[in-house]
Amino acid sequence: MSANTFGNQFRVTTFGESHGMALGCIIDGCPSGIRIDEEFIQAEMDRRRPGGTKIGTARNEKDRISILSGVYEGLTTGTPIAMILFNENQKSNDYDSLKDIFRPGHADYTYFKKYGIRDPRGGGRSSGRETSARVAAGAIAKLVLKSYGIKIDAAIRSVKDIMIDGPFIPPFSPPLFTVNKSKDEEILQLIEKTKAELDSIGGTIECHISGVPAGLGDPVFDKAEALLAHAEMSIGAVKGIEFGLGFSSTLISASSMNDQMDENGFITNNAGGILGGITTGEEIIFRLAVKPTPSIAKEQKTVDTEGRERIISISGRHDVTVLVRIIPVVEAMAAITTLDMILENLKYER
Amino acid sequence: MSANTFGNQFRVTTFGESHGMALGCIIDGCPSGIRIDEEFIQAEMDRRRPGGTKIGTARNEKDRISILSGVYEGLTTGTPIAMILFNENQKSNDYDSLKDIFRPGHADYTYFKKYGIRDPRGGGRSSGRETSARVAAGAIAKLVLKSYGIKIDAAIRSVKDIMIDGPFIPPFSPPLFTVNKSKDEEILQLIEKTKAELDSIGGTIECHISGVPAGLGDPVFDKAEALLAHAEMSIGAVKGIEFGLGFSSTLISASSMNDQMDENGFITNNAGGILGGITTGEEIIFRLAVKPTPSIAKEQKTVDTEGRERIISISGRHDVTVLVRIIPVVEAMAAITTLDMILENLKYER
Amino acid sequence: MSANTFGNQFRVTTFGESHGMALGCIIDGCPSGIRIDEEFIQAEMDRRRPGGTKIGTARNEKDRISILSGVYEGLTTGTPIAMILFNENQKSNDYDSLKDIFRPGHADYTYFKKYGIRDPRGGGRSSGRETSARVAAGAIAKLVLKSYGIKIDAAIRSVKDIMIDGPFIPPFSPPLFTVNKSKDEEILQLIEKTKAELDSIGGTIECHISGVPAGLGDPVFDKAEALLAHAEMSIGAVKGIEFGLGFSSTLISASSMNDQMDENGFITNNAGGILGGITTGEEIIFRLAVKPTPSIAKEQKTVDTEGRERIISISGRHDVTVLVRIIPVVEAMAAITTLDMILENLKYER
Amino acid sequence: MSANTFGNQFRVTTFGESHGMALGCIIDGCPSGIRIDEEFIQAEMDRRRPGGTKIGTARNEKDRISILSGVYEGLTTGTPIAMILFNENQKSNDYDSLKDIFRPGHADYTYFKKYGIRDPRGGGRSSGRETSARVAAGAIAKLVLKSYGIKIDAAIRSVKDIMIDGPFIPPFSPPLFTVNKSKDEEILQLIEKTKAELDSIGGTIECHISGVPAGLGDPVFDKAEALLAHAEMSIGAVKGIEFGLGFSSTLISASSMNDQMDENGFITNNAGGILGGITTGEEIIFRLAVKPTPSIAKEQKTVDTEGRERIISISGRHDVTVLVRIIPVVEAMAAITTLDMILENLKYER
Repeated sequence: MSANTFGNQFRVTTFGESHGMALGCIIDGCPSGIRIDEEFIQAEMDRRRPGGTKIGTARNEKDRISILSGVYEGLTTGTPIAMILFNENQKSNDYDSLKDIFRPGHADYTYFKKYGIRDPRGGGRSSGRETSARVAAGAIAKLVLKSYGIKIDAAIRSVKDIMIDGPFIPPFSPPLFTVNKSKDEEILQLIEKTKAELDSIGGTIECHISGVPAGLGDPVFDKAEALLAHAEMSIGAVKGIEFGLGFSSTLISASSMNDQMDENGFITNNAGGILGGITTGEEIIFRLAVKPTPSIAKEQKTVDTEGRERIISISGRHDVTVLVRIIPVVEAMAAITTLDMILENLKYER
Repeated sequence: MSANTFGNQFRVTTFGESHGMALGCIIDGCPSGIRIDEEFIQAEMDRRRPGGTKIGTARNEKDRISILSGVYEGLTTGTPIAMILFNENQKSNDYDSLKDIFRPGHADYTYFKKYGIRDPRGGGRSSGRETSARVAAGAIAKLVLKSYGIKIDAAIRSVKDIMIDGPFIPPFSPPLFTVNKSKDEEILQLIEKTKAELDSIGGTIECHISGVPAGLGDPVFDKAEALLAHAEMSIGAVKGIEFGLGFSSTLISASSMNDQMDENGFITNNAGGILGGITTGEEIIFRLAVKPTPSIAKEQKTVDTEGRERIISISGRHDVTVLVRIIPVVEAMAAITTLDMILENLKYER
Repeated sequence: MSANTFGNQFRVTTFGESHGMALGCIIDGCPSGIRIDEEFIQAEMDRRRPGGTKIGTARNEKDRISILSGVYEGLTTGTPIAMILFNENQKSNDYDSLKDIFRPGHADYTYFKKYGIRDPRGGGRSSGRETSARVAAGAIAKLVLKSYGIKIDAAIRSVKDIMIDGPFIPPFSPPLFTVNKSKDEEILQLIEKTKAELDSIGGTIECHISGVPAGLGDPVFDKAEALLAHAEMSIGAVKGIEFGLGFSSTLISASSMNDQMDENGFITNNAGGILGGITTGEEIIFRLAVKPTPSIAKEQKTVDTEGRERIISISGRHDVTVLVRIIPVVEAMAAITTLDMILENLKYER
Repeated sequence: MSANTFGNQFRVTTFGESHGMALGCIIDGCPSGIRIDEEFIQAEMDRRRPGGTKIGTARNEKDRISILSGVYEGLTTGTPIAMILFNENQKSNDYDSLKDIFRPGHADYTYFKKYGIRDPRGGGRSSGRETSARVAAGAIAKLVLKSYGIKIDAAIRSVKDIMIDGPFIPPFSPPLFTVNKSKDEEILQLIEKTKAELDSIGGTIECHISGVPAGLGDPVFDKAEALLAHAEMSIGAVKGIEFGLGFSSTLISASSMNDQMDENGFITNNAGGILGGITTGEEIIFRLAVKPTPSIAKEQKTVDTEGRERIISISGRHDVTVLVRIIPVVEAMAAITTLDMILENLKYER
């Protein structure tokens, strides 16, 4: 099973725990001769880094990424690209008190049940910090996709019950990277209020992949939606995904849902750029449900490793919402998956 | 890439077109010594078969499945189990008129773009009939899961804008297999009305997997949600999936979303039985968005293989909704995925 | 694990037991638009069929192959190609006496230990008859390879201690398909003598793949030799493989072994067409050790499923040597592997 | 395609070039709760390190391995184990003169043809130094295998035309790690003579895997021989492999080759511990042909990247033979493969 590897042609394997020595990834199957822009990769890392925005945590993770292999004189050589990120501060006394207790909504309990052992420092492997390696790999994928004219953008579509309507027109801007800024003030107030309540909130992210050729995706089990859903649902906080009209498509009839065609091509794109699991050439569009981040200072009931009831209040500086920081992760997984489909499709190109 | 194979330990490879000689599958990696109940397999096939209910099509597909290998004296031998379903009526004059035209909402256009050639008879490989092989494989998976005490049930949660509230208590009953029968009359009227309008409708399916041990699913990329999403999103009509509270989880705070624990275990199951991608031991719960089936008699705009505009009205006996027939397919994919996770997890069991 | 699937891009999954209902395969990932010559496929099947030559068995297996899917109007569509071969005579009373006894040199004992159950009819899945599905898949691979100008030929290089020297110049001719006919008379006499002794013999097969471009094979673990060795060593009777000078390369110095180059390219091809696991563009050359087929009428000691000592004499019409019939199997595995490497390499082509 | 990943359950992915920043590997799928003995891992690394014996190179590579993840308080956690080895001296002026020229017998030409670009420093990815990551991973595999009572040993069976007869009784001792020391003096003289001739030599390595249970290996394509051949043939210098009697089995009749059984089990082990691709429970035995290492100071003809004829004499301190240093690599690949088969087989165990 792939477990810590994603992709078939462009394969990303990640490693590392939140408070271990280092995190990183190996990319296998990257085409050779691609120019690697290290500044772009670092800029992508910085988008995920906490502390960059009002709504992020106050922790300071520098996330300096180093390329260890697979690049020679600035070009990929076709051999594995290893990237590494050292954890500068591995001290984790903050977490000592959590060693024997399961944080609600976290993977503490399930890792313990699965492996019989777990690294409790900062959530270990289940920490959101693991996604930094995905962002690094996604940055490389984006560099390759750029040569195909493919672009990937994600933005916030809703925060808790605040829905942001309107078209999706990148680029999006700080601090919230919402699809448009009409509700930003309202959202920032909600974030402050939630913080005061020692609680946290989620929302939805929308992602568009543009410039995609028709023909990507492999029926029957590796349909484009299936691969993208696999990729995006592997992000910890994501609890749902929908393509095109998604759940709303169930509310209308086929005559409204079907994307009819004329000599200029598709008249609508209700399908979100995919029919029968294969891309149509229209934009791929999907939305993700991001649950409220589970680390909160508010008191909660839980149990310890001995099964005894405990009350927990998670101190430390945690995100009120991970929505902003999850955007580059969503894009990274979309980039890796799209590139993988492109390389996979080579044998059918003519 | 796996494409027509799903699973890592319990691997299902399917083949066959709607109007080709036969459809079927090979299961590789089935444990040995499992008693195969052929009647159960056929009963599962019959649940997917059209014509069984008021809302299905009037076509008559007998779907008699034959086991060709891997079973000796009624027991699995550990070698590949091949199953085959011959297409009794391969005549497809019905489809001749559709040979050079792309049906809206179907895979006709995308298959043509991907492969440069397509089998136009009944949608070829992209036909819903392909899922019959999945149901056969899923039936075997269910037989193995039964020995682990695991049970899988799916039912209709909504039809177009008719929502069916209430708890999920199997078994569900014909003709609609809704979570409860409170809205059946209303739904049947909607189906009749839609039929008269030469249109079709979709809805949502809910699926529960019960008796699952804690510890299934493999972080970070093969989280239980990721694998199940991959599996279920590979069903043609499915446009979205959500686990536990899913998209609704974005509307509440962490203090409401987090599943707290006491000495009896989890107090709630908002997560849908999965935390950090690993099963908690609670029921796995997910819902799927099933779009309206695209084949409708109502006139629609489209183009032909030469790019010329055409008006299409799809004759023949098509489902007003595939919701009922898709239930066993949803269960089959859930069964295959769950068994795969169980076999994968053996190395961590103690 | 792949187990009954071979290949990454051009993936062949086989099923079926010697005396079950049918054997066959599914090919996934075959490029679309390839013309399928069914007569060629059948001709390949006939090369493996027993009874065709003096040294084969006298059994009569018709081995009529049917294509069930993936081909439309004579062209591949890019969807899975299923092929099936029904076993016309599934009666296997011949084997009833062998039900509880392990034939020496066969897989009877190991299947029983692995699976706890085995299909004893004709060796079940471990029968040489399983390779018929490989030959069918290999025939399709050969048709695709032909469009790349690649040709695969195998011939007998030695039979027991009779070595056949001389260059390798296809085509080779019946009845023995030796690299040249200088020792055919001697070999046929040895076969007669061995038959009279109720014994069997093996030998070596040499295989050349010509027309291969430079650049195939993927370091570090999927070197061309590694993939071909995996493929060929998966044939039951094969106990060794060597590339180029192979074991003889250990007897000379680097200055003799290294293939030097001049402006016309490589001066020699001691490496057998592969350096650092990647093809050089020279012919790929390998040789296989084929052990004597284990089914002999001569009395041998063995045990039964209860561990009791037994004397066994295997009656029935068995091959004195499988060398001739194994030739198309060797070629088939080479074809599948070479095509797989070609499709895999597309991402590095420029 | 796996390319730089080996294994299905215990998956090893390696990265790194000879003179890049670092080499290393990620192990995915290691069972949790295994105690990691770092000194043992380093000792295995040291066996492969040059400079340890008379016949190795005089280079000084310290090969200090660091574990970056997957181990907590000395125990594996079930998450990916990343290991890294920094290249202390990345200066590679020695290789500047070789930048545009293809060394005979090396992968320079083929990498250039495949990727259109290559890292010329010390052979880049194709360097033998890549195997250090395999030895690190193999050491972890050995630690897990030890808990199953499985032991792996390899030794030199021949050096050029000097054959070393006699039984295989570990442990073996320096400087040559031959199966017995009867020919050591003769071999050391041959090495000195070869060095004076500016040439190099190869030989054969024999490997035994003992304590293996019956039942490992997966027919039909992942037979134990096929997986081990894949693993061992992926080592750069290996040009052939044979199991049990191997090529010698072609010289005898079935009545001599077949391993007969009595109530104590197998009377002989000519098959090398594998029948029908599944382990018998006897020792797995194989031998490898290791070609003379291609880097020699003797003048050779070659061409440069422009196709012009050149004369090359490779200076620097190169091994006269890699036989001794390759032993731990052979064992490492055997360990990884054996553990992989054990974990794969769990689903058939009862």
